[in-house]
Amino acid sequence: MDVRALKEFIEKIRDGTIGVDEAVARIRDLPYEDIGFASIDHHRALRKGFPEVIYAAGKKAEEIIEIIGKMVEKEENILVTKLSDDKARIIKERFPKGEYFPNPKAFTLEVKPEEKRGKGTILVITAGTSDIPIAEEAAITARFMGNDVETIFDVGVSGIHRILGKRDALTEASVIIVVAGMEGALPSIVGGLVDKPVIAVPTSTGYGASFGGLSALLGMLNSCASGVTVVNIDNGFGAGYAASLINRV
Amino acid sequence: MDVRALKEFIEKIRDGTIGVDEAVARIRDLPYEDIGFASIDHHRALRKGFPEVIYAAGKKAEEIIEIIGKMVEKEENILVTKLSDDKARIIKERFPKGEYFPNPKAFTLEVKPEEKRGKGTILVITAGTSDIPIAEEAAITARFMGNDVETIFDVGVSGIHRILGKRDALTEASVIIVVAGMEGALPSIVGGLVDKPVIAVPTSTGYGASFGGLSALLGMLNSCASGVTVVNIDNGFGAGYAASLINRV
Amino acid sequence: MDVRALKEFIEKIRDGTIGVDEAVARIRDLPYEDIGFASIDHHRALRKGFPEVIYAAGKKAEEIIEIIGKMVEKEENILVTKLSDDKARIIKERFPKGEYFPNPKAFTLEVKPEEKRGKGTILVITAGTSDIPIAEEAAITARFMGNDVETIFDVGVSGIHRILGKRDALTEASVIIVVAGMEGALPSIVGGLVDKPVIAVPTSTGYGASFGGLSALLGMLNSCASGVTVVNIDNGFGAGYAASLINRV
Amino acid sequence: MDVRALKEFIEKIRDGTIGVDEAVARIRDLPYEDIGFASIDHHRALRKGFPEVIYAAGKKAEEIIEIIGKMVEKEENILVTKLSDDKARIIKERFPKGEYFPNPKAFTLEVKPEEKRGKGTILVITAGTSDIPIAEEAAITARFMGNDVETIFDVGVSGIHRILGKRDALTEASVIIVVAGMEGALPSIVGGLVDKPVIAVPTSTGYGASFGGLSALLGMLNSCASGVTVVNIDNGFGAGYAASLINRV
Amino acid sequence: MDVRALKEFIEKIRDGTIGVDEAVARIRDLPYEDIGFASIDHHRALRKGFPEVIYAAGKKAEEIIEIIGKMVEKEENILVTKLSDDKARIIKERFPKGEYFPNPKAFTLEVKPEEKRGKGTILVITAGTSDIPIAEEAAITARFMGNDVETIFDVGVSGIHRILGKRDALTEASVIIVVAGMEGALPSIVGGLVDKPVIAVPTSTGYGASFGGLSALLGMLNSCASGVTVVNIDNGFGAGYAASLINRV
Amino acid sequence: MDVRALKEFIEKIRDGTIGVDEAVARIRDLPYEDIGFASIDHHRALRKGFPEVIYAAGKKAEEIIEIIGKMVEKEENILVTKLSDDKARIIKERFPKGEYFPNPKAFTLEVKPEEKRGKGTILVITAGTSDIPIAEEAAITARFMGNDVETIFDVGVSGIHRILGKRDALTEASVIIVVAGMEGALPSIVGGLVDKPVIAVPTSTGYGASFGGLSALLGMLNSCASGVTVVNIDNGFGAGYAASLINRV
Amino acid sequence: MDVRALKEFIEKIRDGTIGVDEAVARIRDLPYEDIGFASIDHHRALRKGFPEVIYAAGKKAEEIIEIIGKMVEKEENILVTKLSDDKARIIKERFPKGEYFPNPKAFTLEVKPEEKRGKGTILVITAGTSDIPIAEEAAITARFMGNDVETIFDVGVSGIHRILGKRDALTEASVIIVVAGMEGALPSIVGGLVDKPVIAVPTSTGYGASFGGLSALLGMLNSCASGVTVVNIDNGFGAGYAASLINRV
Amino acid sequence: MDVRALKEFIEKIRDGTIGVDEAVARIRDLPYEDIGFASIDHHRALRKGFPEVIYAAGKKAEEIIEIIGKMVEKEENILVTKLSDDKARIIKERFPKGEYFPNPKAFTLEVKPEEKRGKGTILVITAGTSDIPIAEEAAITARFMGNDVETIFDVGVSGIHRILGKRDALTEASVIIVVAGMEGALPSIVGGLVDKPVIAVPTSTGYGASFGGLSALLGMLNSCASGVTVVNIDNGFGAGYAASLINRV
Repeated sequence: MDVRALKEFIEKIRDGTIGVDEAVARIRDLPYEDIGFASIDHHRALRKGFPEVIYAAGKKAEEIIEIIGKMVEKEENILVTKLSDDKARIIKERFPKGEYFPNPKAFTLEVKPEEKRGKGTILVITAGTSDIPIAEEAAITARFMGNDVETIFDVGVSGIHRILGKRDALTEASVIIVVAGMEGALPSIVGGLVDKPVIAVPTSTGYGASFGGLSALLGMLNSCASGVTVVNIDNGFGAGYAASLINRV
Repeated sequence: MDVRALKEFIEKIRDGTIGVDEAVARIRDLPYEDIGFASIDHHRALRKGFPEVIYAAGKKAEEIIEIIGKMVEKEENILVTKLSDDKARIIKERFPKGEYFPNPKAFTLEVKPEEKRGKGTILVITAGTSDIPIAEEAAITARFMGNDVETIFDVGVSGIHRILGKRDALTEASVIIVVAGMEGALPSIVGGLVDKPVIAVPTSTGYGASFGGLSALLGMLNSCASGVTVVNIDNGFGAGYAASLINRV
Repeated sequence: MDVRALKEFIEKIRDGTIGVDEAVARIRDLPYEDIGFASIDHHRALRKGFPEVIYAAGKKAEEIIEIIGKMVEKEENILVTKLSDDKARIIKERFPKGEYFPNPKAFTLEVKPEEKRGKGTILVITAGTSDIPIAEEAAITARFMGNDVETIFDVGVSGIHRILGKRDALTEASVIIVVAGMEGALPSIVGGLVDKPVIAVPTSTGYGASFGGLSALLGMLNSCASGVTVVNIDNGFGAGYAASLINRV
Repeated sequence: MDVRALKEFIEKIRDGTIGVDEAVARIRDLPYEDIGFASIDHHRALRKGFPEVIYAAGKKAEEIIEIIGKMVEKEENILVTKLSDDKARIIKERFPKGEYFPNPKAFTLEVKPEEKRGKGTILVITAGTSDIPIAEEAAITARFMGNDVETIFDVGVSGIHRILGKRDALTEASVIIVVAGMEGALPSIVGGLVDKPVIAVPTSTGYGASFGGLSALLGMLNSCASGVTVVNIDNGFGAGYAASLINRV
Repeated sequence: MDVRALKEFIEKIRDGTIGVDEAVARIRDLPYEDIGFASIDHHRALRKGFPEVIYAAGKKAEEIIEIIGKMVEKEENILVTKLSDDKARIIKERFPKGEYFPNPKAFTLEVKPEEKRGKGTILVITAGTSDIPIAEEAAITARFMGNDVETIFDVGVSGIHRILGKRDALTEASVIIVVAGMEGALPSIVGGLVDKPVIAVPTSTGYGASFGGLSALLGMLNSCASGVTVVNIDNGFGAGYAASLINRV
Repeated sequence: MDVRALKEFIEKIRDGTIGVDEAVARIRDLPYEDIGFASIDHHRALRKGFPEVIYAAGKKAEEIIEIIGKMVEKEENILVTKLSDDKARIIKERFPKGEYFPNPKAFTLEVKPEEKRGKGTILVITAGTSDIPIAEEAAITARFMGNDVETIFDVGVSGIHRILGKRDALTEASVIIVVAGMEGALPSIVGGLVDKPVIAVPTSTGYGASFGGLSALLGMLNSCASGVTVVNIDNGFGAGYAASLINRV
Repeated sequence: MDVRALKEFIEKIRDGTIGVDEAVARIRDLPYEDIGFASIDHHRALRKGFPEVIYAAGKKAEEIIEIIGKMVEKEENILVTKLSDDKARIIKERFPKGEYFPNPKAFTLEVKPEEKRGKGTILVITAGTSDIPIAEEAAITARFMGNDVETIFDVGVSGIHRILGKRDALTEASVIIVVAGMEGALPSIVGGLVDKPVIAVPTSTGYGASFGGLSALLGMLNSCASGVTVVNIDNGFGAGYAASLINRV
Repeated sequence: MDVRALKEFIEKIRDGTIGVDEAVARIRDLPYEDIGFASIDHHRALRKGFPEVIYAAGKKAEEIIEIIGKMVEKEENILVTKLSDDKARIIKERFPKGEYFPNPKAFTLEVKPEEKRGKGTILVITAGTSDIPIAEEAAITARFMGNDVETIFDVGVSGIHRILGKRDALTEASVIIVVAGMEGALPSIVGGLVDKPVIAVPTSTGYGASFGGLSALLGMLNSCASGVTVVNIDNGFGAGYAASLINRV
């Protein structure tokens, strides 16, 4: 129930279409009880205006389909993240208009056109080619949330001129997401070059003492550049989401 | 060399006061060599407008005094972080107009009034009372960088009504910094309540399996609330700096 | 050797059927040697009244069947935990009256009706949908041990109103089991809302810096709410068992 | 907001006393503000039979004195934990009727006699002599919360007969707290001997690979005995508090 | 080249069958060069009398067959450890007289009868049933090295009477190997009961916070019982080997 | 309850002095209380040829003095380990005949001459000079337990000829204790040279990535030489004790 | 922008072709864009005697083929590392003249003969047979970069005479790469024997407490032998590359 | 035993001067005792152009003085590392000609002029000012070993132009040591700019998630730039030593 629907509901109370008891019941149950799932949805709509995002890992294809179904009924756009190819096939059959992106393992379904809400451009950068899937997850999320997004891939620190050559793009962005594995040093470089919020995303790219991304994570947390904040390893979605919030401040 | 000085330099090229060879030499060396320290300074001034911040840990009092001295000559405001009481006493003697905040271990010296540059209010919240020094470091940093800052202390998750009772403040803030030790759960709660960027600062508050803040750090990185990004343990300065950048997007 | 058999043994001492030396030998050896397995069993029966629980991981299907067989002979109810689908199929063929729960990977076989021994209701809560299998393991264990059990799923901290809306259930429970992965913050919230023992179960739900549940585990151990105790990662059984003991205090 | 208040609110919508916009705003805030906050608060008030406990680490003596002062005004009994000798001296001067226990670093001040609320006896056991301070913290907490407490010290697993010789005490207790450092094995032994809830407290006793209590903590979490739950390293208070809740189930 | 062969070689120098230059060449090359592999063999034979043991992990079946072949030529008994079923099948085809033990993943081939060299009995104990494969690796190794070995399985600390009932076997052994996963507490109990060297073998049995055996390893290293030494996780072979050396002191 | 008491008990069952129910009750409790305790106790008494060892860390000087006092009354020799200089001074005043060794922080007091019980010589080796205190703790313990002990210091692996030059001593020892910090490689070398049990003691010697001895500990656990077992970091006492047990096998 | 271009730029300022504001803008951006980039680029071009190396992990076969294609056009020799068998098959079909080495998972394609650039011989040593693949990766890399390479395999520290027997080879090498898993002690031995740079490569060989190579890595970092530097776990390529740079100093 | 001695030995076997048993014994010991020891020793003597270096941590002032005394007698130059101020004062009194450097905590005493042995210049770079002491330790070591050394301090990655401005120095060096704490990213940048061996030294500079240098260490091990090798945290000496070996290749 978004603000418009709520207003209609209140109007109906006013004009007597909805009786007192029914109104009591519906208001009381609004936030919590409305079948758990659905009521949460309403409340989120009220306070966020944001469409729901479905985290697919640990959910079965049927469960995801059910959630999508309920959301489509309410004319909400759909973003599913961390969706394996297997499940994607099943879901795609059921919602053939949706689009599956195998690299970032994301699925989107646009029911109504997303309105542009971000002010500036969100720039997504990767250190290496192996970091691209996570970067694309960030980019899809940010676009889904109504932002202009640009991407620059494979400009890691071992060839520092590559990122230096992109200073225009850095300067023009309003928020920058930097995705890097291994030693995770790129966010420090970028943070030193610009005067913009930088969100660092460590990836599990690497082997040996990269310890599944721990090395990149620690590197980013200890960044000597100011203005860098960090999200979980491989959490492209989280970075895209946070960047979207920042892009509307 | 700020924009005004640069213009004068160009005027001198134009009117022939500075010859071609001298101009070539000075331009080529501008960013790097100009005494190292000074040139960096200039370049930062050109691209940031931000005053310098001095990280005191691992620097001697005399070194800090020397840096402050050079900056004051250039009419820059001063912020020193992680400054021990011992060093503060020495520095305060030399710059008696400066102010030392023993709790966050910060020292400020306003040479010229800071202009207001942030759009909205930055809200700094702590879970417990032991987290306050780090929160104050964040608050001082953000104020120093030209923002309105408000603080709410001791509203941790074991009494969830405490943070719920502050929803107005949450709603009105443009960026929220949440400082918490122990299990570090407060940023997840706040992130679920608002539609604003949340910067989570883990602290080393706690004992035993808190492992010097690791527990809070991991909790924040795994936050199930979207829009939460994280900085290093006890890095109040970093959070205040990042929030300031976000508050100008 | 249960009480009845022990009585017969004593009667035989009394009537001289068993001589003094034989009696000495058997009594001295009673607790330890009496066929190892069987005597342990008896002794447990004497002091616990509790049915045996079989931990299936690392045991072969045939071994489990043999153990079940011996227990069924003695009219004991059966609970098998961490039982893979493969083994379950084999065991189910042999004991078709048993029931296999694929989600929590548990198998039960009721030989005689379980008597109700718990005083109040044990409430099992999960933060997310991925935590449900572990929660169901806890619930099945607690029910198997003679308790009334209720469950509330998917009320994690990123939408705090969801758990707040369940306060009635929280208030009415006598013991609460809270199952959560990722940052593991839900037990702190629940522990702050109620005045009941809370058993926290970290799960391996999550990715990246969740480090297989370590993040949730540390969060729970550092809980700022009093009255929270913790079991091993993914140990739904242990939580259900401990809650059952508490429910009889 | 209860049902009656809600009806009045709806009536006011109907009769136009409350306008549409105001109605929208209040309904949107409903879940948190009124119901949420007030009821929880009430709930805390209801359960307040419990005196407050003050965690002293990270608080200054003056801050603690201020808190104690306010509580004494309300005739509440005082328990302060993790209180260093230095601070204790200052506090003791101000509240000379209070008692300081240097070993567990706890301070109590009884304003009114604590009523007995626990059903049975809480038994506190330690593996070694170095674990005694933490055990005493647990014991003081449990006594403070109205329980009968007994203690058995230095019955660790390297001389297994020591704990076996205490079976009567084990059998008679309603809840057992086991405090152990080093390998932390004692809770498993105790958990295997009794049919009672066992709360395991790892301590930082030990050196080398004890890693500040990590070794004992992991040992306890992996206990092969059912019914054992664990609290943070050196968290005697937490164990005493949880045991008190259990003792009233 | 064992002592007998060396004597023959010296006799041949004495009687001139082997010339000075040839003797120089062979002696100089003896320890190192003699095809690398073979010469090492000789030297080991001279100083140890011990048969070679082949660690199969990371070696291909063909490589293992080649090593076995060379050793059989020299009439040495064969023990292969950590041998997967796949490789075992191939090796067994080539050496059909050998015996493969699938549980401990060991392969033995007796070319000549092993002489009894250990003084007393080596006792191998496990805490649980999942620890049995590692225990069997230890037992096979010790038997292979000429010792009498006895085994007692599944006497873990959660039912302490089980190990207490085996005191006779404990007392009669000359060395005791204790194999345990999870909290790894059994070696402490055994070490407290006997006055014999105890070798503790942590296993990767368990889940969650057992962290692949780390929990058991730390527990054993921190054992409060004197006389306990520890080998690597799952290193049954190492324990059996060390026990064999001890049994000959 | 010994055999005689048990016979009397049975006689009383026979003649009806003890009724059936009482007999059931007493037999059921038998394993732990009477037999359990007494027999273990008896066992300890039998092996007590060993003097007690007092671990001083975490005990106050007065507590240690009290323990020593009771032991001296029983004519037992005294060994105190991990005893700080401060406490040593106090204890030495009370027991002036005792001897304090400041390097290994050990205190001994010989009430009666220790009889020689070990068969061969225990050899204690260190890699560096910083490892000597721990080595001396091992040596004092082994001597105290009636063994001949020899020591070789500072023969670490970076100058491999140093240990090679000591092969005679290695060959003649019956058990070898190798104490090493940093990479902890010396036990592997020694284990490859001899056919004797090797006990490896990691020390906290080193800095940076030695992580307080963790590096040496892991190195020793992963030793590629067979026959090496490991004790806790800095646990010289444990190594000396285990070596003493081995030296009597 | 080189000096000539810079002069032209200044002339244009002088003659007014470029206005003051434009001049300010271009000078401010100078350090990174033009000078920065171009000069670095130039620098890379200057040193490019080196062929490119392609890290295959995380790249698709098609992507690798595309990169190879572009490089072959420029007549560059090809080295691909960490290339799985599957991808190798596809690439080999497309570039049949290339050679795939399945053990080190490397692929090479020589377009033009590599000129010899290293001064002396690079020696690659392994502790065990399981370390050979990583050693071969190092050897192939070093050969590919124009060095003479020799290898000695399976001379680990548990049979110290094996490496001692290779002193000639050690003495003759100019750089030595030592590849070892488990306790990683071999580099210390080698570093103590020679006066050459030693590059240590930890491998993930081992099990249990080897923790995927962490144990070997820590051992090497804590090496008590001077002159040893370390690369990432399993990073044979990195060692070969660094050795090549050293071999040209 | 060289070939001549070996021939004599064989002749003595032939003519019976050496009996069979003695021959067996000597041949069996051959690999270690004679060849092993002597030749290595000789080897050390040959390479001793190098002065000894004394690691002071864990040694008493008197012990260090004794070692210095013996070396001075042999006219060897002295370098002492990790020497605390306290010990330095005592040593300086005894050897007043020596020089103590309080920042890197090093002491040198030149008995004879050091001959220049390195080919090119060793460049030592730090990321921050707190890294300077470790850098100076490296510089002193390298100078002491006969190299020209240059230093550049405080050119960390958050202001990337600072290191870019030093390209000339980078290009002219033969080996580069990069000292950095926090995220440890500088070696990757330098490694990408030059074609020289880079030795990375992580420092314990930083706080929170720097975990005493672990973060920098992991970052450097995972460097995406080729040619970077790593030494222990804070091991300036090791880097200086390795660089010296490389500078003579």
